Amino acid sequence: MALGFAAANSRAGEAIRVAGRDITLLGPDDVRLDRADVIFSALPHGASIRWVEAARAAGARVVDLSADLRPGNGAPTEGSLAAAPYGLTELMRPELAGADVVANPGCYPTAILIALAPLLQRGLVAPGATINVAAASGVTGAGNSPKPELLFGEVTENYRAYGVGNEHRHINEMRAMIARMGGDMGGDADIIFTPHLLPVARGILATITVPVTEKLVTPLSLWRETYANEPFVEVAETTPSLRDVVHRNVVRVSAVHAANVRQPTLIITSAIDNLVKGAAGQAIQNANVLFGIAETTGLPA
Amino acid sequence: MALGFAAANSRAGEAIRVAGRDITLLGPDDVRLDRADVIFSALPHGASIRWVEAARAAGARVVDLSADLRPGNGAPTEGSLAAAPYGLTELMRPELAGADVVANPGCYPTAILIALAPLLQRGLVAPGATINVAAASGVTGAGNSPKPELLFGEVTENYRAYGVGNEHRHINEMRAMIARMGGDMGGDADIIFTPHLLPVARGILATITVPVTEKLVTPLSLWRETYANEPFVEVAETTPSLRDVVHRNVVRVSAVHAANVRQPTLIITSAIDNLVKGAAGQAIQNANVLFGIAETTGLPA
Amino acid sequence: MALGFAAANSRAGEAIRVAGRDITLLGPDDVRLDRADVIFSALPHGASIRWVEAARAAGARVVDLSADLRPGNGAPTEGSLAAAPYGLTELMRPELAGADVVANPGCYPTAILIALAPLLQRGLVAPGATINVAAASGVTGAGNSPKPELLFGEVTENYRAYGVGNEHRHINEMRAMIARMGGDMGGDADIIFTPHLLPVARGILATITVPVTEKLVTPLSLWRETYANEPFVEVAETTPSLRDVVHRNVVRVSAVHAANVRQPTLIITSAIDNLVKGAAGQAIQNANVLFGIAETTGLPA
Amino acid sequence: MALGFAAANSRAGEAIRVAGRDITLLGPDDVRLDRADVIFSALPHGASIRWVEAARAAGARVVDLSADLRPGNGAPTEGSLAAAPYGLTELMRPELAGADVVANPGCYPTAILIALAPLLQRGLVAPGATINVAAASGVTGAGNSPKPELLFGEVTENYRAYGVGNEHRHINEMRAMIARMGGDMGGDADIIFTPHLLPVARGILATITVPVTEKLVTPLSLWRETYANEPFVEVAETTPSLRDVVHRNVVRVSAVHAANVRQPTLIITSAIDNLVKGAAGQAIQNANVLFGIAETTGLPA
Repeated sequence: MALGFAAANSRAGEAIRVAGRDITLLGPDDVRLDRADVIFSALPHGASIRWVEAARAAGARVVDLSADLRPGNGAPTEGSLAAAPYGLTELMRPELAGADVVANPGCYPTAILIALAPLLQRGLVAPGATINVAAASGVTGAGNSPKPELLFGEVTENYRAYGVGNEHRHINEMRAMIARMGGDMGGDADIIFTPHLLPVARGILATITVPVTEKLVTPLSLWRETYANEPFVEVAETTPSLRDVVHRNVVRVSAVHAANVRQPTLIITSAIDNLVKGAAGQAIQNANVLFGIAETTGLPA
Repeated sequence: MALGFAAANSRAGEAIRVAGRDITLLGPDDVRLDRADVIFSALPHGASIRWVEAARAAGARVVDLSADLRPGNGAPTEGSLAAAPYGLTELMRPELAGADVVANPGCYPTAILIALAPLLQRGLVAPGATINVAAASGVTGAGNSPKPELLFGEVTENYRAYGVGNEHRHINEMRAMIARMGGDMGGDADIIFTPHLLPVARGILATITVPVTEKLVTPLSLWRETYANEPFVEVAETTPSLRDVVHRNVVRVSAVHAANVRQPTLIITSAIDNLVKGAAGQAIQNANVLFGIAETTGLPA
Repeated sequence: MALGFAAANSRAGEAIRVAGRDITLLGPDDVRLDRADVIFSALPHGASIRWVEAARAAGARVVDLSADLRPGNGAPTEGSLAAAPYGLTELMRPELAGADVVANPGCYPTAILIALAPLLQRGLVAPGATINVAAASGVTGAGNSPKPELLFGEVTENYRAYGVGNEHRHINEMRAMIARMGGDMGGDADIIFTPHLLPVARGILATITVPVTEKLVTPLSLWRETYANEPFVEVAETTPSLRDVVHRNVVRVSAVHAANVRQPTLIITSAIDNLVKGAAGQAIQNANVLFGIAETTGLPA
Repeated sequence: MALGFAAANSRAGEAIRVAGRDITLLGPDDVRLDRADVIFSALPHGASIRWVEAARAAGARVVDLSADLRPGNGAPTEGSLAAAPYGLTELMRPELAGADVVANPGCYPTAILIALAPLLQRGLVAPGATINVAAASGVTGAGNSPKPELLFGEVTENYRAYGVGNEHRHINEMRAMIARMGGDMGGDADIIFTPHLLPVARGILATITVPVTEKLVTPLSLWRETYANEPFVEVAETTPSLRDVVHRNVVRVSAVHAANVRQPTLIITSAIDNLVKGAAGQAIQNANVLFGIAETTGLPA
């Protein structure tokens, strides 16, 4: 498979270099959706769904990187797009194989749900628990539009929380998936999610505190079993850093029990590159699954 | 009051410039403790206490920046140093006035305890609660010894947790003060504390999640009342950033309720400069109290 | 003297905090020029001169931070503004005392001309020489408008030259002053100036290579003599770094001969904070001179 | 070809991961030089030459990344190592083919000599000229030993020159190669080289000012012709930035004439990744030439 074309709004007509080829960005009117096997839509939330529909009508499969089709975000409940599976690849392969449209996950949910799944699937989250997530992201998580608060002079030597009080739009996506994965045992867990802006270009680290039903003797073995054959999940003895994951399509995760607390509680740390496993890399991984080719094709492990 | 001398081990003999004066750092043997009204001891943990004793024997008052005399760290339980108050100035003034020795708080505890005190003092922390703290510090929090993991090439564009699982040595100091301030109502709260290393030179931000007994209509008013007359505590409508506090002797704090959770929970964010309010600035603030002079003397607000 | 008002275009109506006071930024129409003793105009180049004229007509003195009145930039050759002296304070005091309008220098020229003056004034620049300047500036030198190339994600871990080939608009200002200061002996020197963009918020470092008429035994003594009584010029044994000067109203300069070259050549390094000595600080310094008050008033040395 | 082993002194016994394989670093005594086809020696300057000799005695070819065999650094003038060619690959292929030992160039000389060669080879450097180089490097150029001046807290938001006055040890290497490449026409050029330390992890940018014999109508065509078929030299219309070259084995170079100067002068900007084309990448490129395999094998273009 090869890149057919790339399109943009404000940058239409601009030349870019992709994988050794010179490409001119097309404007929306010049796009030939009917000539593509698969379309990757990275349009803003709200603006993506009608292009997904147009691409489907033209016969292309679609990986949608917007939130429009993700759970918890008002995705269509009827019509063909209602069936679009959630593309957290490692956890959704049965639904992805053969699908025509995939809702590619958000960056924070990718890091956090991969970390939580082994506990949720086994019913190990304490009943009525509140899962606490403090996460931090590099500035590319906020896009590349020139906003004053993203200028170098504002970000360097600075750090702050944002969306404090459960105001970030990724909350619903995570809550919906926690309910689905946890079912009757843990699916009612509350989540408190506080993201922070880091003075780095790329990378997300999530620090997740989860009250659990019992103290585990070797907590890491849970993640090791769940992800034993996964090329893109690394289970690590030591807490991951951004440097371990940038420019790679992996989630790197570790977990330990908190000492000196009454309620058994795990601290899970999970790191990804928000631009790779948190966006474009996972999109390619999903496209590979859609077409039944090797999942690692074209991806940096 | 004026600087009498400054001493160092490995850098003894080196010339430095302090407040417009050229000073030569003395070696330990050349120090005349008897000529000082007050000694600021910034020796390593474990190495400080005997110098505190020597300074007291020589007639000087002491602000000890090590952990040796802090609660929860094996401080002496008898002898004159057993009575050394904990120098979280805003909360301990009655004990500080007239004291001879002060245990200057750690940097993380300063940011976190100032943030928690209004809830603890009013019994608003939910019974049996676990207080969750995710905090991040600039590299100067780790001292200025040349360790490989603190090299620019390792820290830039990186971010990671450390001491994960309640392993940081500041835990005991915080736990002891939570018990003291909370008493029967909230003093039994567990704390889970996960620090992170930021790619910035200075500053600490703590993001604190506290289950509370009830939903508060105007949570900030609690902090506004507690710190109404404090020159060095800022209560802010919006979440503080490191930039708001670096080079200043302040704690800046904000608080909101988490949306969409069953258990009423406050998210408090608290920022300080670890080198000022978290260390040298608070030490001067405490010395000012010891000598009964204006508490803001010599300090950047 | 106290701040009367502050004005802005796009940010008019916004509240800012200045020196402990809350100020609301006025729009251009609400400004009362007649109520001010002195106006600091920081308008864009080209847009400033008519406000300077309006302020003069209203009776205020003016420090103009734009290039409009600087030498080599098409400043008026007749009318009252033609006489506006160039506010490189240390070198222009006789012309500044009693002036009504001052052309505040550019940031790069401040660092470079203070460094060159001792050689030019003594005729030590080699006849027909080319002075080579490689300089680097933090991003605030490019203003705070949100341009894509100034986003954190573009600037971090990056570095590049700009205006290569003598295209920077500060060239003319420097060339005019070199001619004026050098006169018949060195005033014909060519200059090649290559600025670079640093991944730092603030600060300028200029590395200046000057062919000289003879090898000097103790080159630093030239600068020491010239600036012996200057509170805002530091002559240093070792090459200055940005850290030595940020947040301070100083030029810090050092000089050594290049080893192993036929033509005697000095390498001068000169550092300033572009926002202080390179802009607002020098503007206040100039205002102090205009009003005959102590030149250091209100300035961080 | 595959990695046989990797050795270290202080880190012997440590496990590292290289290209998907887990490797344990050997100590010097456990190394089997006789089992290797080629040894890459990255030992400190002065300590490398005896290992080069030992490896040769054991029958291995050697790419020596130290300065011990480079021109201008006291390389042996007799014995087999006296014939070791200088591995600036693009300019030295005839000497490299079939050699047993290669002196891999320094990082700064790689960026600077590739930039200068087209002028030197054609005799276009003005007679008696002084070539002025202001260069800047990321901190990995200073190695990874933990020195105080390389700590994050010292380097962030800072910038300074070092080795000012032609004191850097790369000077001799460049001077020797300028003489060799320039011969009678330009080989007597003086060079003034001032390196600077950038707050970035990796990358070198050199800004080179060269007086030339005449004004060239299309200066870039010189570099385009010289490097027309080179996979690892990019000739660019616009001035290169570090971002263009990091993680790649390329030199990216551009050149323009300085405006408004009497002496025709070119400003050449040249960028490399000091860890790739400036060290390990060029070492592999040279090994590829030694063994007569495709020069791009294993290298990121």
